[in-house]
Amino acid sequence: MEVKIMKNILGANKTLAEENRRYFKDKHITAVNVMASPGAGKTSVILKLIHSLKDEVNIGVIEGDIASSIDAEKIEKLGIAVIQVNTGGGCHLDANMIKASVESLCLKSDTLLFIENVGNLVCPSAFDLGEGIRMVVASVPEGHDKPFKYISMFEAADVIILNKVDLMPYMDFDRESFYKGVRALNDRAPVFEVSCRTGQGMDELVQWVRQACR
Amino acid sequence: MEVKIMKNILGANKTLAEENRRYFKDKHITAVNVMASPGAGKTSVILKLIHSLKDEVNIGVIEGDIASSIDAEKIEKLGIAVIQVNTGGGCHLDANMIKASVESLCLKSDTLLFIENVGNLVCPSAFDLGEGIRMVVASVPEGHDKPFKYISMFEAADVIILNKVDLMPYMDFDRESFYKGVRALNDRAPVFEVSCRTGQGMDELVQWVRQACR
Repeated sequence: MEVKIMKNILGANKTLAEENRRYFKDKHITAVNVMASPGAGKTSVILKLIHSLKDEVNIGVIEGDIASSIDAEKIEKLGIAVIQVNTGGGCHLDANMIKASVESLCLKSDTLLFIENVGNLVCPSAFDLGEGIRMVVASVPEGHDKPFKYISMFEAADVIILNKVDLMPYMDFDRESFYKGVRALNDRAPVFEVSCRTGQGMDELVQWVRQACR
Repeated sequence: MEVKIMKNILGANKTLAEENRRYFKDKHITAVNVMASPGAGKTSVILKLIHSLKDEVNIGVIEGDIASSIDAEKIEKLGIAVIQVNTGGGCHLDANMIKASVESLCLKSDTLLFIENVGNLVCPSAFDLGEGIRMVVASVPEGHDKPFKYISMFEAADVIILNKVDLMPYMDFDRESFYKGVRALNDRAPVFEVSCRTGQGMDELVQWVRQACR
């Protein structure tokens, strides 16, 4: 019974996600669904990418959080079109929230749209938003064993960012084990090691996103 | 409609949770539901507490993960009764899983039972397991803004641990803001600042858990 209900919800979401996907395609909008644990650095990655790309491409942001508008305020300060979605307890964004947000953002054609999902390494991976790119942000302090435990998230990723590499000297992070876990699930997503704090590795990531917008 | 379904699920869970709570009370079992983001240090905190308390009290552990038995293996090496619950995609433990696990663990009376929930700062807070203590582990690298975003988790906590304080010098963590967020939601839970890596602050936490078992 529970499985059926879940399937219905996912079925309805899928239909809306396909509508979003068509809309994004027609308007040449590159939608990036940014997913991660709480505090892995989703907002920091988005802010860094905005700084590097805002003079070459239109950018919009949908900020998903259970509560607060902390992250949307950070984005707004940069003069970027942003909308905050508060899920009010909900543990993920869904395609309907994206549809409503996109309408209210009035995005231009040729836009790079960041969708920052709720901080959660589990549920968001089950809900297609119609995005073109699924970006998963892992971070060094979370430990190297995360791909072994949060399988569907790493399986689903089109690009994986390993953030906070500046903390590597102070932690027992086994890089080899992390890559082993990732590659057992996903052999196509590039992995970028970055530090949003120091800027390390950001150039390569910016270049990848730039290519993805073309 | 969706709300009704959710209420039914939560209602059924609540009934089982009350059964667990009665069972724990009758057998004088102190059940601690350990909740946190992925990689905040739930297992490390449990391992540290086991090391300090295993000679004075019976200990059992239920390890919740979507997949893998990495954490249960770490516990088992210490000769502690442990059972791994793999939720197979599920984003939280529920009271029924705990009921089944407790039966199979055959716990003695006067036991300290750690229940390590799935790494998720959202969903686990909605599911009562029948525990006596809700322990929330936050960590410095996640940032000081988490209480403002993951409200129900910090509201529900009986004790809050701020782990990885050894990384404070390398991060922009605003301790005052963190406490402001916590205290806006919860004025009763003690907060322990610890580092599982260096052992800093563990004595006070061990003492608190020892008292809680009496």
